[in-house]
Amino acid sequence: MIDLSSLASTRQITLRMVMRILLDRGAVSRAELARLTGLSKQTMSEVFRELESGGWVQMTGRTQGSVGRSAATFEACANRALVFGADVGGTKIQAVVADMHGVFLSEVMEPTDKRGGDHVIAQLAHMSDTLARRAGLPLERVLVGTIGIPGAYDARANNLFMVPNIAGIEGTSLPDRLKALVGFDVHIGNDVNMAAKGEQWRGMGRDIDSFVFIALGTGIGMGIINEGRVLRGSRGAAGEISTLPIGASPYDGRTFRAGALESSIGSAAIRERYEGRGGEAGLTVRQIIDRIAEGDMIAVATIDEIARTVAEAILAVSAVVDPERVILGGSIGARPELLARVQHFLPRCMAMPPECAISQLGSRAGLYGTIASSLDILREQLFQTASVSSAISEAKRFEATQ
Amino acid sequence: MIDLSSLASTRQITLRMVMRILLDRGAVSRAELARLTGLSKQTMSEVFRELESGGWVQMTGRTQGSVGRSAATFEACANRALVFGADVGGTKIQAVVADMHGVFLSEVMEPTDKRGGDHVIAQLAHMSDTLARRAGLPLERVLVGTIGIPGAYDARANNLFMVPNIAGIEGTSLPDRLKALVGFDVHIGNDVNMAAKGEQWRGMGRDIDSFVFIALGTGIGMGIINEGRVLRGSRGAAGEISTLPIGASPYDGRTFRAGALESSIGSAAIRERYEGRGGEAGLTVRQIIDRIAEGDMIAVATIDEIARTVAEAILAVSAVVDPERVILGGSIGARPELLARVQHFLPRCMAMPPECAISQLGSRAGLYGTIASSLDILREQLFQTASVSSAISEAKRFEATQ
Amino acid sequence: MIDLSSLASTRQITLRMVMRILLDRGAVSRAELARLTGLSKQTMSEVFRELESGGWVQMTGRTQGSVGRSAATFEACANRALVFGADVGGTKIQAVVADMHGVFLSEVMEPTDKRGGDHVIAQLAHMSDTLARRAGLPLERVLVGTIGIPGAYDARANNLFMVPNIAGIEGTSLPDRLKALVGFDVHIGNDVNMAAKGEQWRGMGRDIDSFVFIALGTGIGMGIINEGRVLRGSRGAAGEISTLPIGASPYDGRTFRAGALESSIGSAAIRERYEGRGGEAGLTVRQIIDRIAEGDMIAVATIDEIARTVAEAILAVSAVVDPERVILGGSIGARPELLARVQHFLPRCMAMPPECAISQLGSRAGLYGTIASSLDILREQLFQTASVSSAISEAKRFEATQ
Amino acid sequence: MIDLSSLASTRQITLRMVMRILLDRGAVSRAELARLTGLSKQTMSEVFRELESGGWVQMTGRTQGSVGRSAATFEACANRALVFGADVGGTKIQAVVADMHGVFLSEVMEPTDKRGGDHVIAQLAHMSDTLARRAGLPLERVLVGTIGIPGAYDARANNLFMVPNIAGIEGTSLPDRLKALVGFDVHIGNDVNMAAKGEQWRGMGRDIDSFVFIALGTGIGMGIINEGRVLRGSRGAAGEISTLPIGASPYDGRTFRAGALESSIGSAAIRERYEGRGGEAGLTVRQIIDRIAEGDMIAVATIDEIARTVAEAILAVSAVVDPERVILGGSIGARPELLARVQHFLPRCMAMPPECAISQLGSRAGLYGTIASSLDILREQLFQTASVSSAISEAKRFEATQ
Repeated sequence: MIDLSSLASTRQITLRMVMRILLDRGAVSRAELARLTGLSKQTMSEVFRELESGGWVQMTGRTQGSVGRSAATFEACANRALVFGADVGGTKIQAVVADMHGVFLSEVMEPTDKRGGDHVIAQLAHMSDTLARRAGLPLERVLVGTIGIPGAYDARANNLFMVPNIAGIEGTSLPDRLKALVGFDVHIGNDVNMAAKGEQWRGMGRDIDSFVFIALGTGIGMGIINEGRVLRGSRGAAGEISTLPIGASPYDGRTFRAGALESSIGSAAIRERYEGRGGEAGLTVRQIIDRIAEGDMIAVATIDEIARTVAEAILAVSAVVDPERVILGGSIGARPELLARVQHFLPRCMAMPPECAISQLGSRAGLYGTIASSLDILREQLFQTASVSSAISEAKRFEATQ
Repeated sequence: MIDLSSLASTRQITLRMVMRILLDRGAVSRAELARLTGLSKQTMSEVFRELESGGWVQMTGRTQGSVGRSAATFEACANRALVFGADVGGTKIQAVVADMHGVFLSEVMEPTDKRGGDHVIAQLAHMSDTLARRAGLPLERVLVGTIGIPGAYDARANNLFMVPNIAGIEGTSLPDRLKALVGFDVHIGNDVNMAAKGEQWRGMGRDIDSFVFIALGTGIGMGIINEGRVLRGSRGAAGEISTLPIGASPYDGRTFRAGALESSIGSAAIRERYEGRGGEAGLTVRQIIDRIAEGDMIAVATIDEIARTVAEAILAVSAVVDPERVILGGSIGARPELLARVQHFLPRCMAMPPECAISQLGSRAGLYGTIASSLDILREQLFQTASVSSAISEAKRFEATQ
Repeated sequence: MIDLSSLASTRQITLRMVMRILLDRGAVSRAELARLTGLSKQTMSEVFRELESGGWVQMTGRTQGSVGRSAATFEACANRALVFGADVGGTKIQAVVADMHGVFLSEVMEPTDKRGGDHVIAQLAHMSDTLARRAGLPLERVLVGTIGIPGAYDARANNLFMVPNIAGIEGTSLPDRLKALVGFDVHIGNDVNMAAKGEQWRGMGRDIDSFVFIALGTGIGMGIINEGRVLRGSRGAAGEISTLPIGASPYDGRTFRAGALESSIGSAAIRERYEGRGGEAGLTVRQIIDRIAEGDMIAVATIDEIARTVAEAILAVSAVVDPERVILGGSIGARPELLARVQHFLPRCMAMPPECAISQLGSRAGLYGTIASSLDILREQLFQTASVSSAISEAKRFEATQ
Repeated sequence: MIDLSSLASTRQITLRMVMRILLDRGAVSRAELARLTGLSKQTMSEVFRELESGGWVQMTGRTQGSVGRSAATFEACANRALVFGADVGGTKIQAVVADMHGVFLSEVMEPTDKRGGDHVIAQLAHMSDTLARRAGLPLERVLVGTIGIPGAYDARANNLFMVPNIAGIEGTSLPDRLKALVGFDVHIGNDVNMAAKGEQWRGMGRDIDSFVFIALGTGIGMGIINEGRVLRGSRGAAGEISTLPIGASPYDGRTFRAGALESSIGSAAIRERYEGRGGEAGLTVRQIIDRIAEGDMIAVATIDEIARTVAEAILAVSAVVDPERVILGGSIGARPELLARVQHFLPRCMAMPPECAISQLGSRAGLYGTIASSLDILREQLFQTASVSSAISEAKRFEATQ
């Protein structure tokens, strides 16, 4: 079998180019490929032979040519290489195995092993095995996996930190220990960054290059997509907007733990604000927001203030990274009652507010992101291109120069 | 002459690779080049002949080989292609012509033509001509120019906006009109982004990938370097932290013009704060800060409050983009009296503050940035590599895979 | 003529008691008076003779007694002593002469002499003379005058200060210099305190003991009526809520002049907020508020924020002095558009908001207050009772103990 | 025995006047009294006989007259009437019985009966009985008692409310139920108002008319002395500055319970701020402040912020009631470490800060206040004069008019 990832010769460059075109375009006839690549008929034949023998390409039928002739078309064998993605939360893990086109072949959701640490790692290994089996494919086909974690990950130092909700998983060992169990390369990403990546791939960020995804739920986080790429920051803490000095004074030591913004508008704060005003005790934030429709003025006053502060946070984010769109997600962020109020306040605190929209992927955004991220890495390894989107644009540019 | 920018064949790829190595490494022997590129002796000879005939490469002498033999070395002709950079301010323009190594060949500073618009464009054209002449080289050698402007530039829409200090220059025509006069490609960048770029190239950001440069002077602005690249934002307004909702309420319509933060700590605000407390009227901010050393308690109280607010702004920036370092510049930002106070307040408002440092490039940071930016574009055009730093890392990776 | 103000003997005490009862009750029969005072018939006769000969009392007719007999009644000669009141503003002076019942006998309004100082004092003297003449009574009948001034007055130190709108009037000389011209005692009060006093006498504070009057106009001020009396503070600066640390940081030296609250919501601030958001330039605050009805969303957003801040100020005032009611006045405070918004925000920032109401006296509140204040002083001098209201309650208590 | 409290005739007025002079002046000779009162020798003799027979006055010896003769002097029998005062806290009760001069005859401190309500009332009754016995005087001598309670008391409605720390004591029954047990009149005052009263009588407010006492401890409260009298507000909630909109947003529903200011700087907040910054867990505020001297920078940063906010609160209070002095008390307010910082910040947030001082009465200020308040009421009942201070000033005025 050809090891695509270590190709170096001209032949290898050619093989990669062909594979990339097939993956991006779907079924392509030999003639089109020749036109796109400028390769000779003979070289094409040799390339296809090699790719077919490695299981990367298959002939799929015939398309109708322009002058009435039919021609054989080729397409990539999408499940020749697979990717794994898992969104690990404090309470549950969602995991998927997908093919090279990003088609989900099998999916599973389990409660997170409360014992944390190695137990969670073993759980992930077992899930990947289960998923490959359910997909009817050998685990060896999985070449890349990405794990979304509710914490900060410093890729440079391979250090996972600030993971309050999963015991014993901070530090440096997760990727290596998991790889030792599953065989494929394991990458880590912050869960909200993964959600932003998911929005870019399949959600409200599909059509644009620069946006942020703000998750408002128990906690507050943000993923930034800038010029098509996740912005990670020097320690992997970019987007940790829970610490924005908004809604509370950052000089108040009480905000050092959760951050001033999260102290002010996290779900605990919302419940306490509601109860503090005399609202019924013991409601969840979901229930409090539901009460707006019932005319509960305490709920209205509470969520008005939250929205006012969220608008300020969006202003702060815009001042720094100038997103084209703000996608709101999370159990609170996804509520239209909040969005309406944020859109009331935004033009009152900034002259040119960004577009705001609610995520349509819901709690699956992060899972999508882990697959999108794994695919990027897979392609980079296979074809040395930076990302799904850049692969596409490079292919276009390549074509344009022909 | 070879048009390096349109090379497409294998030969052309080889030419680019050799040029890149020569530019990055300085003088290199033929044997080393053969080792680095894997090219045959014959191919190497052909390549060098072609590059020499185009004026891109010259033989420079002999280095001592490992076994006592001396060998001819080759190096790039750095002034075969030149770049132009100009930092245009409301009161003065600084401009430079530099060679492919970034060596400044000639430099000039002039008051900005107060009539603005076409007059400034003509001024820039005249300056580039003057600089080439002073460098003793034809203007045609200049292939790329970058103009730093105190405003926002939306590269996608080629739209320059928010340029309060230079009349008649907003809109879309600057690059084309200037190119029509000078012949080379003209690019535009926000002046503070350019300063950040300059810090990255020759200043306090040389050693790191992710940092911000905050300019505190008449106004407030920030340039963000993230993973080695300037972060521009969807409309070119990333880093416009004058609008951060810090130091004043963004719901106060008065802050819509200058932004809440700038309304609070811009130089006009500092003077008014000082005078409002009973400080001597008519002093400049520079003079007010000077008075700290003289024991002027009104100056102390005024600058304490400014620093307290700057620390909050740094916290906000860190929450969003997580820089490794914050470089302070501008007439106010460069004052050690301010830095000392900011460093007092930072750990009081955030748990893990970033490193802070004062720019050493002073008012020349932006100028350096325009040259660094021009060099990036030149190299991308010549060699299709993204940036100076990525060129280096790609060269290393390339080497490593051999 | 009897000098009522220096009575000391038992006889004098008796005279005062009778006068007080007549002033409080209107026409009273001799029998009633005897019952109220416990004086013998003979003493009563002597007292009346003395009061009649001094011009303080007159017989007025006959009321129907309980057993069918009719009896002569006596009443005070209300214009035996007069009071003068003047509300001096930066642009105009309103002045009145009233009788002992507080009936306005003559009234005048003039532009304030722009030259200030002695010119304003001469103007006041001339006005009092004119008013007495118009009332058809000698100026000597005026025993007490009160001048409301837009500034702080420290009664202990007889020092008038913080009078930005009238030149040359600060300091200690106003009462003495004016008295030298007019002959009667001259007292000074802060104009907003006078307005509160006016509200207590004839306005929205008639029925309660503890309330505040907040004037929102060009500037911001407050008069406090606590247990029926104006609360002045140690330096006469009570109620100077322009300096409340609300709406802006008091650590911002710019607020030292006008105060944080006034910097935030004074009329200059409102206009700048409106224009800063893009509202039409050059409108007055009155016009801006008028635009709310026309659907001007910039006006709505501007006044919403003002009301939100006013509500916070009312909370602060309530936390300190716990008024039963807040009366809003001044060109801005009197607008129902503002009141409606304040009433929206108040229950959102405090659990038990005070009642809020708009002054019905308009720009005459201060003038009423100067007369009410003069009457208090007159009665205290004549009868040694603290105030109009305490005179009444003492009379009742006196009666109850009989 | 003469019932002094119902005197109404001229004779009774004379008796009261004499008693007042004796209480204010101590021992006085008959000649002096005659001079002060203008009474004839014979009337004086009758008066003294009557007062002596009632036990109110005694002859005490002889002072040296001006012309060499010695004369008998008279003085009040200070323990002819007694007062009771009790400062009831959540954890302990301090109580005192004092004579008409305010001399403490006996004093006791007990833990507050945790069962609250009637149990506390019974405890107070028992304490008064014990105290009278210890003083060697019959309980019937106690004519007035004042109870300081940590809550708001609306005297108009005789309603005690907001008493979180003593169970079952809110409402209207405390004065009547206690009176039924003890026999004397029972009055209620807010504990911080009582502390202010105590400061006025024996503390840092002795020499001035208008000041505030701010208690900073577990909670935050303020007593206001304005022109010599406690300012109570319309519902007895004046000085409840825990709700000042400072240090936190009042629109945050969480502050509705404790108030924005108390939420921000109450002792719970201080501990949480300290721990939130990484300070050692479990310390008391006392211990945290102690650590400042040990160089604990977290303690320094924490208390700096508290002081900054306290200074703002003092500004707010000054803007409303303009006190001449601010007396700080309570376990936190009494710390010089705090005062020093408040005095650093005050001139930075206001142009003319009031004097600040720490209470010297400590936890006994409230107790002193209950006695001072009882004495005021006793004298008002006995002599119908408004207060201790007004009694004195009236006596002086009286004398001056002679």
